[in-house]
Amino acid sequence: MSRKKIIEIERDILGKNNGIAAVNRALFVADDLLVFNLLSSPGAGKTTLLVRAVSELKRRRPVGVIEGDQQTSNDAERIRAAGVPAVQVNTGKNCHLDAAMIGEAYRHLPPLTGGIVFIENVGNLICPAAFDLGEARKIVVFSITEGEDKPLKYPDMFAASSLMLINKIDLASLLDFDLGKTIEYARRVNPKIDVLVVSARTGEGFGALYAWIDKQAGDQRRIVEDTRL
Amino acid sequence: MSRKKIIEIERDILGKNNGIAAVNRALFVADDLLVFNLLSSPGAGKTTLLVRAVSELKRRRPVGVIEGDQQTSNDAERIRAAGVPAVQVNTGKNCHLDAAMIGEAYRHLPPLTGGIVFIENVGNLICPAAFDLGEARKIVVFSITEGEDKPLKYPDMFAASSLMLINKIDLASLLDFDLGKTIEYARRVNPKIDVLVVSARTGEGFGALYAWIDKQAGDQRRIVEDTRL
Repeated sequence: MSRKKIIEIERDILGKNNGIAAVNRALFVADDLLVFNLLSSPGAGKTTLLVRAVSELKRRRPVGVIEGDQQTSNDAERIRAAGVPAVQVNTGKNCHLDAAMIGEAYRHLPPLTGGIVFIENVGNLICPAAFDLGEARKIVVFSITEGEDKPLKYPDMFAASSLMLINKIDLASLLDFDLGKTIEYARRVNPKIDVLVVSARTGEGFGALYAWIDKQAGDQRRIVEDTRL
Repeated sequence: MSRKKIIEIERDILGKNNGIAAVNRALFVADDLLVFNLLSSPGAGKTTLLVRAVSELKRRRPVGVIEGDQQTSNDAERIRAAGVPAVQVNTGKNCHLDAAMIGEAYRHLPPLTGGIVFIENVGNLICPAAFDLGEARKIVVFSITEGEDKPLKYPDMFAASSLMLINKIDLASLLDFDLGKTIEYARRVNPKIDVLVVSARTGEGFGALYAWIDKQAGDQRRIVEDTRL
């Protein structure tokens, strides 16, 4: 198959995905729902981070989670144990969630009007960057155990994300890790990216994360009102 | 595009890749070369591990490295600084190396007859599992910071690998990490997988890794001789 043919097919797949993502987005806005797409390498701590966040956020508003993995339903079970509804999507051979999977999974969540849905994507710093799911914001979770150079080596993911959560900061004193360099590299591929430093294990930095989420909720309401004027 | 059409295209791409991989493999055997394909999540420590291994292995035989990344040539520079020839392949939007990239990169390495070539794949626990590069063995590097459940969540990678290197064991006392459970999960998806525990930072376990490599060299020579009889 020629390179040109492959590019055409990729464009076709992404075009169809974007159409479904637009439908998802309209539905989420109609349901007054704020949707985040969480992305990272395998093992960066997305699920541990979500378990802590949803346990706290559910006291203030409805929260639901869509979990993506090649196999297993471990993550959805961990979220449900925190008292929050979760739907597991298994992608099988696929390396990312797509908008159609999210549209289908969303129908299996209870009504969450005025609340938040977190989508935990498959652990992969490459493929999920290209697939809009209809989310309000992409959040990339980066573990300090991965090394400072990852934003430069996987630039598409950091360019597509609105927020970088630098996780496992409780391990910082044990590793040769340069926080300033990591942020510099992330801003080199995405000058507008927000950055927060957290520990999903200890809870450090989660107050700032909740404030960031509140700000996105305000932004979404303002955009929706502006569109209606 | 229909699901059936997508599966047909995937089969076509993989079929062409396998053809080129077979040519690579024949060339590597003709050059009496042992080739390993190193796979892992981003930041599992493949490059640090390779820098240490090639520095020691080069005293006994010729060694070369092919480095795969979406962007940057940082890794090839780190290998060259260790006194070993390295070729960097940038995959751009692509999430894995393919056999054609390796065939081309190999032509840019100096003659390494009787030696070893390490291919460091793009950091990704999913896509590279499906692409044969012509290597003798796939080695999956797993960092203990990623959590025990990864072999179950990304089964194709662990099923395709001959060896799992459990890396960053120097951090074990600081984390809630269950070595036995990790090995049990890996063997559940691949009962024949070899397992070695190492620290690329301290050098722990590297003697066993070199012994494993020597055994693969013996196996390859025996297979080649059997074929010639």
